[in-house]
Amino acid sequence: MSHMFVAVVGGGTCTADEARVAEAVGRGLASRGAAVVCGGLGGVMEAACRGAKSAGGLTVGILPGDNRQSANPHVDVPVVTGMGHARNAIVVKTAQAVIAVDGSYGTLSEIALALQNGIAVIGLGTWDLSSHGQADRSIIHARDAEEAVEKAIAAAGKRRD
Amino acid sequence: MSHMFVAVVGGGTCTADEARVAEAVGRGLASRGAAVVCGGLGGVMEAACRGAKSAGGLTVGILPGDNRQSANPHVDVPVVTGMGHARNAIVVKTAQAVIAVDGSYGTLSEIALALQNGIAVIGLGTWDLSSHGQADRSIIHARDAEEAVEKAIAAAGKRRD
Amino acid sequence: MSHMFVAVVGGGTCTADEARVAEAVGRGLASRGAAVVCGGLGGVMEAACRGAKSAGGLTVGILPGDNRQSANPHVDVPVVTGMGHARNAIVVKTAQAVIAVDGSYGTLSEIALALQNGIAVIGLGTWDLSSHGQADRSIIHARDAEEAVEKAIAAAGKRRD
Amino acid sequence: MSHMFVAVVGGGTCTADEARVAEAVGRGLASRGAAVVCGGLGGVMEAACRGAKSAGGLTVGILPGDNRQSANPHVDVPVVTGMGHARNAIVVKTAQAVIAVDGSYGTLSEIALALQNGIAVIGLGTWDLSSHGQADRSIIHARDAEEAVEKAIAAAGKRRD
Repeated sequence: MSHMFVAVVGGGTCTADEARVAEAVGRGLASRGAAVVCGGLGGVMEAACRGAKSAGGLTVGILPGDNRQSANPHVDVPVVTGMGHARNAIVVKTAQAVIAVDGSYGTLSEIALALQNGIAVIGLGTWDLSSHGQADRSIIHARDAEEAVEKAIAAAGKRRD
Repeated sequence: MSHMFVAVVGGGTCTADEARVAEAVGRGLASRGAAVVCGGLGGVMEAACRGAKSAGGLTVGILPGDNRQSANPHVDVPVVTGMGHARNAIVVKTAQAVIAVDGSYGTLSEIALALQNGIAVIGLGTWDLSSHGQADRSIIHARDAEEAVEKAIAAAGKRRD
Repeated sequence: MSHMFVAVVGGGTCTADEARVAEAVGRGLASRGAAVVCGGLGGVMEAACRGAKSAGGLTVGILPGDNRQSANPHVDVPVVTGMGHARNAIVVKTAQAVIAVDGSYGTLSEIALALQNGIAVIGLGTWDLSSHGQADRSIIHARDAEEAVEKAIAAAGKRRD
Repeated sequence: MSHMFVAVVGGGTCTADEARVAEAVGRGLASRGAAVVCGGLGGVMEAACRGAKSAGGLTVGILPGDNRQSANPHVDVPVVTGMGHARNAIVVKTAQAVIAVDGSYGTLSEIALALQNGIAVIGLGTWDLSSHGQADRSIIHARDAEEAVEKAIAAAGKRRD
């Protein structure tokens, strides 16, 4: 069994709408056979894990703290880093594609680290980037959870690391 | 499903005897329902993962490098840290008990980090520690794989983090 | 002697114009008594260190690799992390304010990590952020090196950690 | 100015005797032109930094937490990692030789990580290692602070990284 791994990144707290989107993303990934990687905490991370488990998927939570009990209840594999925000780099490197759902600066750092590592980022209502007045088109925007899952699976399948 | 996680640490290369012991440890852990955490590479790590998979277990490899392909073929969940030796701290923190099979200085650092974090270490032909001419009895020595698995499961079951 | 620490982040390669700006930033920080923290490599990092040394300042390079020789020749204190991109979090946490000069995704991750940690970011021709069609005004844009230094010193002086 | 860097590792709390030894080590290193690297906190770390500053040396503290205020008052360059025990790997990699003064499991992990990286370890009343009933002679034991400093400077001078 060789899983495909897709990270779902987003806020540790989120609105009911964002949770619905993240849950649909998690469910869609699991139904396509991809494991969900995330930061292991609440909000978007928890919703994505809940969705993945509802479809029988595997979930990995890369935790910032020293306590495995901080993982949300839908995490199968809690990885205890004790590294704080520096763990964001591990979340994205462990994935073959990243789906960003909304999110704040922590999510932005994960988007940037993914792009720095050449890992595709699919955005759902997340950040827009520009530099020197020019839009940066590296984030692949999707209209809904279904499209995000499809694009993430396609991008992950192309990676050969 | 809430797994118990036990780390198996040891050399990235090992003798045939050590591999036999590590494989028996992995198989024993899996047959008791514990997931195997390790550094994801060869030697003792690979033998432990092979043993765990032969008993239908789950295996997690916390990789030092940036490439998921460096994981041995029996790793289910390759965690890509890109952190080099600093990932040793994550291997032990992710576990609720540690079994050390032989090993060199990398293994010794994992033993020390586990003891520093209050995580039980079971030793199979591994380091002996002393300080100021006094033996340190923190490593729980076991005679064989079966005893090591039993002691690790008992220790892991007592942790409440 | 208690130094103020300001990070200068930006591309590992840069144009001659960007190098001139980064060098002026480094010189300005040193002349105001602030130490320069950076990723320790070339481009903007090297120019900032060169500027700081020309004014008798102190320079700290938080290196991604395992080799202190990878530091540019103007780094006084090479910190060898062996952690790859995960070291970006250390660069910003070690600083009391961050000046971003141009830069690509690595720089963007440092900007995001700084904002996530409540550390002021002064931008010189760097990223613009927006979310849901709304500009994010967290980056304090400066017109030139002098203004960037002044704003960074003011922000760093307000921090009490 | 190109400094030589020597790490002084040991307990975060220590006896008055150990503090005297660590302070003499720090003073000796500084008087030989070597900068002191340490974990930045109290006990042996603080005594070594105090000794170094009394001889006009440079001190670098690689802190485990997120707060620069946790550095002891004799640290010139507080590096804020937020990485907990995983920062031990950075302490030793930043040094060209390591002097271990007494210490517990954290110190043992730093000794092991240094030996794993081929960095010389000089011991002053610290751990003794053995494996399979055979003493491991990798730690270079010294009788007093003066001998430890001399051996560390000699070892550091031989490194070409």
